Amino acid sequence: MNQATPPNFAKGPEELLGPADMASMSGEEFMRGIRDGTLPAPPISRTLGYHLHSVDKGRVVFRGTPTFDYTNPLGTVHGGWYGTLLDSAMACAVQTMVPKGAAYTTLEYKINILRSIPLGTEVDCIGVIDHVGRSTGVAHGEIRGIEDGKLYATGSTTCIVLQPPPQV
Amino acid sequence: MNQATPPNFAKGPEELLGPADMASMSGEEFMRGIRDGTLPAPPISRTLGYHLHSVDKGRVVFRGTPTFDYTNPLGTVHGGWYGTLLDSAMACAVQTMVPKGAAYTTLEYKINILRSIPLGTEVDCIGVIDHVGRSTGVAHGEIRGIEDGKLYATGSTTCIVLQPPPQV
Amino acid sequence: MNQATPPNFAKGPEELLGPADMASMSGEEFMRGIRDGTLPAPPISRTLGYHLHSVDKGRVVFRGTPTFDYTNPLGTVHGGWYGTLLDSAMACAVQTMVPKGAAYTTLEYKINILRSIPLGTEVDCIGVIDHVGRSTGVAHGEIRGIEDGKLYATGSTTCIVLQPPPQV
Amino acid sequence: MNQATPPNFAKGPEELLGPADMASMSGEEFMRGIRDGTLPAPPISRTLGYHLHSVDKGRVVFRGTPTFDYTNPLGTVHGGWYGTLLDSAMACAVQTMVPKGAAYTTLEYKINILRSIPLGTEVDCIGVIDHVGRSTGVAHGEIRGIEDGKLYATGSTTCIVLQPPPQV
Repeated sequence: MNQATPPNFAKGPEELLGPADMASMSGEEFMRGIRDGTLPAPPISRTLGYHLHSVDKGRVVFRGTPTFDYTNPLGTVHGGWYGTLLDSAMACAVQTMVPKGAAYTTLEYKINILRSIPLGTEVDCIGVIDHVGRSTGVAHGEIRGIEDGKLYATGSTTCIVLQPPPQV
Repeated sequence: MNQATPPNFAKGPEELLGPADMASMSGEEFMRGIRDGTLPAPPISRTLGYHLHSVDKGRVVFRGTPTFDYTNPLGTVHGGWYGTLLDSAMACAVQTMVPKGAAYTTLEYKINILRSIPLGTEVDCIGVIDHVGRSTGVAHGEIRGIEDGKLYATGSTTCIVLQPPPQV
Repeated sequence: MNQATPPNFAKGPEELLGPADMASMSGEEFMRGIRDGTLPAPPISRTLGYHLHSVDKGRVVFRGTPTFDYTNPLGTVHGGWYGTLLDSAMACAVQTMVPKGAAYTTLEYKINILRSIPLGTEVDCIGVIDHVGRSTGVAHGEIRGIEDGKLYATGSTTCIVLQPPPQV
Repeated sequence: MNQATPPNFAKGPEELLGPADMASMSGEEFMRGIRDGTLPAPPISRTLGYHLHSVDKGRVVFRGTPTFDYTNPLGTVHGGWYGTLLDSAMACAVQTMVPKGAAYTTLEYKINILRSIPLGTEVDCIGVIDHVGRSTGVAHGEIRGIEDGKLYATGSTTCIVLQPPPQV
């Protein structure tokens, strides 16, 4: 389950997969490709210091460590860092259920911040599906300290699933 | 209203204000100091390409432009970028109402993404308070394209306000 | 704008419109029919003491007064009463934009309670769309005292819009 | 765990507990009193057809069955019924952690509706705390069919906890 290979970061848009490539594999295959470093990782995950750690059907874990660059003016981790990790984990959990040819996008997410993550604390952000059907996906998530086991934040999301047009 | 001075980014935690400095000014004074470049801007705003644009009592605007570095693997702007800007604008709108000596922190936020922001599109993220009392603050926000006027996202937040302990 | 006719409450499921009747009119026509008493009002609105007050394209107002029957054990208005009115107003605002033949349903809603509504206080609950497209609708809402003008609660919702299958 | 005694519904505000009575017991004692029928049940739970089923520290279950009176004009269960049960279960889960003398109130809640509950289907609504501290409480919840085991809805909430003023 551990990510042996380092993430494969695209240098520019031309290195990301195009729509045809995306449509050629299921969401789960796509996520496993990112985990294994054979497909490009999300650029924002490099910008914000986290990476895909594990992929199972309906469950995805991102792992990261907040640093000074992600803080608010009070010197504590900005709420946007919590939200970005949760959005990634919850949406990708939905994506593992999306069949080949279908697409999906996030409609909304909500997060609760329970306590402040001390800078330098490595955390797991776990996304788990509640329901994925033909037209929608719902998932929840949490951020937990790896060493201290503390629950730092929780969240939920709604995604829309777009089925491929029927073949004529 | 326009920010004439460039943001003043702290190089490290030692350049941020300490609790005593924070307690010496109202939330509105603090926000105006960031806007005018006399106080350090939030480190995350440099990391994610946005800056404080205007400050009024109960209303704050951040301005930014998404680039490739803030995208998801599909090459579109990651939901975390929308959430970070909205969290900043909504929480800072609450902060402008927090009196000297009191503190506040974000308990939760929720965002709706209405459409995808094309890379390179400059947007305003506007946060406006709904209610700020002795113990809580609620605000809503939106992200709008500066040129196209389109509404890209909306959000809401709940903050807790912590009054200073009574003097003996 | 004022509702001259009293709401028309169905006595049982057989008096509600069936899918074929629903598909024969636009969402706006349906809402206007409820407002004018020519179509049956939502049964829950009788149960919880509120009624449709006005309908415009993209904007709907429900009006109601909380009583003892809608309280929690502390004797104050239960959060479910706020949520029910907001869900009604926000979802119906989306419905006014849904064309003939299409359907819609609520995926999620979130509410913030800003202050407690005193029992017996008549309030308006206003729902306004942010965006309604081919596949989704997003709206926000607020509950405001009619006499005191106070803002008691705010909310937001995401609906899915289901277009009719293409004719063969 | 099963509620042997029928709920004890107050006939009017004078039969609810006053602030002094409330302050004389912990939140858990209060919830157990409602469960056992020794304290008055929430009036709204009679209005909307549900009752407190079980109480544990940090976990509360309400049980109910939707009927025609809780439907929207489409004849399906109104989103407000889901939200009311979830708000009850999640807030009461927080309340079980609130010590004697302290008070609490709901600041916000959000729900996702995953599928429609068929009329007449008995469901459990389970609220579980994520964190309850000196000043805030966060909980999540779900609605599940008792016979079919299906997950119908999920939710989350933020409450504020108000400690008693220090004794002089």
